[in-house]
Amino acid sequence: MRILRTVAEVRTALRPARRAERTIALVPTMGALHAGHVALVERARGECDEVVVSLFVNPAQFGDPDDLAAYPRDEARDAVLAAEAGADLLFAPSTEELYPPGFATHVTLEGPLVEALEGARRGPEHFRGVATVVTKLLNVVQPDVALFGQKDAQQTIAIRRLVADLNLPVRIHVSPTVREQDGLALSSRNVRLIAADRARARALPAALAAAADAHASGERDAAVLGSTARAAMTPFGVEPEYLALVDPESLDPVRTVKGAALVAVAATVGGVRLIDNQLIGTPGLRRRQP
Amino acid sequence: MRILRTVAEVRTALRPARRAERTIALVPTMGALHAGHVALVERARGECDEVVVSLFVNPAQFGDPDDLAAYPRDEARDAVLAAEAGADLLFAPSTEELYPPGFATHVTLEGPLVEALEGARRGPEHFRGVATVVTKLLNVVQPDVALFGQKDAQQTIAIRRLVADLNLPVRIHVSPTVREQDGLALSSRNVRLIAADRARARALPAALAAAADAHASGERDAAVLGSTARAAMTPFGVEPEYLALVDPESLDPVRTVKGAALVAVAATVGGVRLIDNQLIGTPGLRRRQP
Repeated sequence: MRILRTVAEVRTALRPARRAERTIALVPTMGALHAGHVALVERARGECDEVVVSLFVNPAQFGDPDDLAAYPRDEARDAVLAAEAGADLLFAPSTEELYPPGFATHVTLEGPLVEALEGARRGPEHFRGVATVVTKLLNVVQPDVALFGQKDAQQTIAIRRLVADLNLPVRIHVSPTVREQDGLALSSRNVRLIAADRARARALPAALAAAADAHASGERDAAVLGSTARAAMTPFGVEPEYLALVDPESLDPVRTVKGAALVAVAATVGGVRLIDNQLIGTPGLRRRQP
Repeated sequence: MRILRTVAEVRTALRPARRAERTIALVPTMGALHAGHVALVERARGECDEVVVSLFVNPAQFGDPDDLAAYPRDEARDAVLAAEAGADLLFAPSTEELYPPGFATHVTLEGPLVEALEGARRGPEHFRGVATVVTKLLNVVQPDVALFGQKDAQQTIAIRRLVADLNLPVRIHVSPTVREQDGLALSSRNVRLIAADRARARALPAALAAAADAHASGERDAAVLGSTARAAMTPFGVEPEYLALVDPESLDPVRTVKGAALVAVAATVGGVRLIDNQLIGTPGLRRRQP
């Protein structure tokens, strides 16, 4: 696996593959790779001829400079994990390479897609930063497929929207969230949980499972599904920051689950902010008339 | 020349050319083609294997609905002119094709680049509309080269900036403004000038020529160059809306012309708003020490 630092190096490195009409996959990451990222790279390896992993801690999507400074960075370890998972190229640019002096362009989204859930908490700059860097990375690599994890559900929805809106010629794959044995979604933040809080963090997958079970039993009222999910968190002593049932495309609140709905939850456990989500119901499936 | 209405049709039509590594040029237009557009298409024809002209009156860049409704539209005439100039494909989509329901993404630029000159007059939405539709058209056609006219100087500067910032893999060519014999820059709006006002419209090129002459004679003080240019408009009874000397990349005001400067002018003559501009000096050239 080669490590590349500049846009020009990436273009040069991929030229032969593009000429030979070999398919190219991109897995964008901010490093601190875990089994969720590895699963994306392995999937890319199975589907495409060339696999590019990008590693860039994007300052534009951090509202808080302290949060940015504290973000874990270990490029050597990430490079080994990416190579072992099957990456051909690791694109690890400097901040100056992607945001040179005079940089003045942003990709913005509007509406509940970026204002709800994480947008309400992290401010409009967050998804602007995500949208801008993803657009740039897609234009640098020009992949056939870009792969993202369902863990960041809102991010994947915003990316699907901007790819469609800007007519970017790429397919977006979203892979299922990878979880610990007890259901906790993998996150670079989980290592910061002390043992007692690690046990309490199970409140999030427990809430999602409770909503899914109630839905499977026929409950369709979003308010009831939501309170069922909240109740499942109580034994863990965890209060959700939000627990919402929303439309999986628009993120508009859902009152009655007709087709599919996204159950999204965020909570701070022992000082560590965690998010998780689960799709319930089947997109586009309408219940038959009795 | 084929006329195509959808993004999918354009992708399909260009696939064989792309596979054969034939070069592709795009000339984006809002129709109402004149000799300036024809020169761009002819240049594209001379430089690339496949020439695509787009024809789309972009609602997103009009602040005023009346202005949008009044914009001249004559697709049949435009199609003939484009074909005769050498276009292979005319992409003339509907508004719904480019802005389907749920559309939520915009490309924005910030700073003097979009706030000065036309931005001050037309509001921040104007260049956001231009930037978004140009990004979309570049992604739909994926040309090697996109061609624009120097007449809309600020637009070309904003487009160069966004292409660099978003890492769009395209070269931008800017062709000289095409002018009437008396120097008036070609514009779809010129036909709306009655004869007396048509004569007065020469105030704009006269102002630019006066600034260029004074610069050629050694004048480097922007205030003096500006007042010289303004004085040249007085005999025509035309008052500029703005007459500015700015940096040709950042559009920051220039106090002393060291390398190159852009002289930009706007004025309303007989109810018709006209713009024009001229580069003076040589970019990057420093005067030798005596």
